[in-house]
Amino acid sequence: MSYLDNIRKVTPYVPGEQPKVEGELIKLNTNEFPYPPSPKVVEAIESLEVETLRLYPNTTAAPLAKAIADRYGFDEDEVFVGVGSDDVLANCFLTFFSSDKPVLFPDITYSFYDVWTDIYRIPYETMPLDDDFKIKKEDYYRRNGGIVIANPNAPTGIAAPLDVIEDIVSHNPDSVVVIDEAYVDFGGESALPLVKKYKNLVVVQTFSKSRAFAGMRIGFAIANKELISCMNNVKFAINSYTMNSAAIAYGVAAVNDNEYFIETVGKVVATRERVKKTLEELGFVSLNSATNFLFVTHKDKPAKDIFEYLKTKNIYVRYFNKPRINNYLRITIGTDDQMDKMISVLKEYL
Amino acid sequence: MSYLDNIRKVTPYVPGEQPKVEGELIKLNTNEFPYPPSPKVVEAIESLEVETLRLYPNTTAAPLAKAIADRYGFDEDEVFVGVGSDDVLANCFLTFFSSDKPVLFPDITYSFYDVWTDIYRIPYETMPLDDDFKIKKEDYYRRNGGIVIANPNAPTGIAAPLDVIEDIVSHNPDSVVVIDEAYVDFGGESALPLVKKYKNLVVVQTFSKSRAFAGMRIGFAIANKELISCMNNVKFAINSYTMNSAAIAYGVAAVNDNEYFIETVGKVVATRERVKKTLEELGFVSLNSATNFLFVTHKDKPAKDIFEYLKTKNIYVRYFNKPRINNYLRITIGTDDQMDKMISVLKEYL
Repeated sequence: MSYLDNIRKVTPYVPGEQPKVEGELIKLNTNEFPYPPSPKVVEAIESLEVETLRLYPNTTAAPLAKAIADRYGFDEDEVFVGVGSDDVLANCFLTFFSSDKPVLFPDITYSFYDVWTDIYRIPYETMPLDDDFKIKKEDYYRRNGGIVIANPNAPTGIAAPLDVIEDIVSHNPDSVVVIDEAYVDFGGESALPLVKKYKNLVVVQTFSKSRAFAGMRIGFAIANKELISCMNNVKFAINSYTMNSAAIAYGVAAVNDNEYFIETVGKVVATRERVKKTLEELGFVSLNSATNFLFVTHKDKPAKDIFEYLKTKNIYVRYFNKPRINNYLRITIGTDDQMDKMISVLKEYL
Repeated sequence: MSYLDNIRKVTPYVPGEQPKVEGELIKLNTNEFPYPPSPKVVEAIESLEVETLRLYPNTTAAPLAKAIADRYGFDEDEVFVGVGSDDVLANCFLTFFSSDKPVLFPDITYSFYDVWTDIYRIPYETMPLDDDFKIKKEDYYRRNGGIVIANPNAPTGIAAPLDVIEDIVSHNPDSVVVIDEAYVDFGGESALPLVKKYKNLVVVQTFSKSRAFAGMRIGFAIANKELISCMNNVKFAINSYTMNSAAIAYGVAAVNDNEYFIETVGKVVATRERVKKTLEELGFVSLNSATNFLFVTHKDKPAKDIFEYLKTKNIYVRYFNKPRINNYLRITIGTDDQMDKMISVLKEYL
């Protein structure tokens, strides 16, 4: 008997490496945005009043929730704001998946889902994607305690059409269905319009990818206000004040600059399509990506070897040593210059 | 049957009111610090590089953990940093209180403790404080799944002597003992030196009070590195990146300005002692406070009536409608000017 016996044992999620290397590093392993945040954010930083920091922030990050609501055509009480979409999704798991029935999600998807089910002791079952890594909607018509689907999916990058998502939502009136749209701005079709139609739907998005704000930790959920109120109750039962005053102020500036958002996301999408074509010419097979990364496999060379070789050249991509995808690489779309450097290194290697 | 049946029902913590009023407001209800953060924080805000915000922050907030470790004479891996001490304490509950035995804490204490036990489904028992609102250490010598003690206690403001804390820690080698020192800088005796001696001790502190940083959400735990590693594993299983880059940078600036910290905390303590004396002259009984608030009761007038009257004058203090303390007010120490205004309103009323 020891105090250690009372401690919760968990298998933590392993985020992509944040390497410390000498010299130039090309970091294409955690799906960060290659361009800086909006110039409006610089203004917001310059005008942050230090005096306000002595006071507790707004508990629901109301100014930011309002800005997000306005951007997407919802009311403020239909928006929940959290510390990155991981915080928002963890809250969804804790709030909405509180039954003895299994939660359903695909076998290949964001690798945090089974970490949350583990820590919150939620039963779950994974549904295998088909051979083309696509969701089979009929898999989600069985008895369940909730459903979570990343769309576009990670790490495949594949987007399911909106009618597939709608069929899953409409077949499950007795479960909350969470659609994790971390990458939707790069080419997916958002389920946000369905929130007006289905009371059991929660759509989660993030500022970490398309709004260049991984460092500020901002994510949000949009759902009918009854579900948002349940999320707030759980949040208030853990930490009433999660969003600091700087995140609220800088986040408002980021979401309000829609022009910069459209321009920079457009650049990433153009780079992605160009790089995809080039990689295919080099013998790679690339899944169709609706995200800011490509999921690729090479017809001759093992993915792990390419991964290790790139690392020796200070180029970091992501390799998952998991069933079905252990011959693939996930490559974040960087600047054109970064991608050209990666391609020239790949050419040398191949 | 409905999707609502799968949703977790919770009784959320109710934080102090953040009133929206016209005109001048004297806010003495949430124990915020009356002086602004250190001038070094202004410099940190001005030098925040927006470009860094596109990248994920350091998962363990390492630069801030290092600054805290240096300040208190520990190693970086003996420090855990979270989104305010609420985040740190919630993590402690989830990590360390994972048994079927009851967690013990006083009947009158920080009102979040039973909210966390509720949401994480942890059994608990409360131990009554004595008639002078003091901890009886023998209450904590029974079988338990962990112990949490706020010292100084809230909302009483009373500090237990360090030998009482040490006796509780040393009598419980099979439990983790968490000492919540949110208010320690205003006059309590910290248990930090005991961390070197007891492997089952976790000390939690916050930047929200004495470092004028409620708005930036920074709290920390110090314990032996084995316990800190367990806390990090749980954190990584919920949200790998909780501390945004601004909080890390501004927090380092705040903790490094020890001179400003000592000066401003000294001012608050001086104001507290002066106000305590004046209130006693007005017929109040005030517990001895080792915090930045006074817990007072009036010999003739009901606390609730005084609370309501102050509110009509735009002066907000805290009233808890709970057994044993429902004739007390908790009054945060503001600036001398704010306290003088409150005293003159009280004089009118009495």
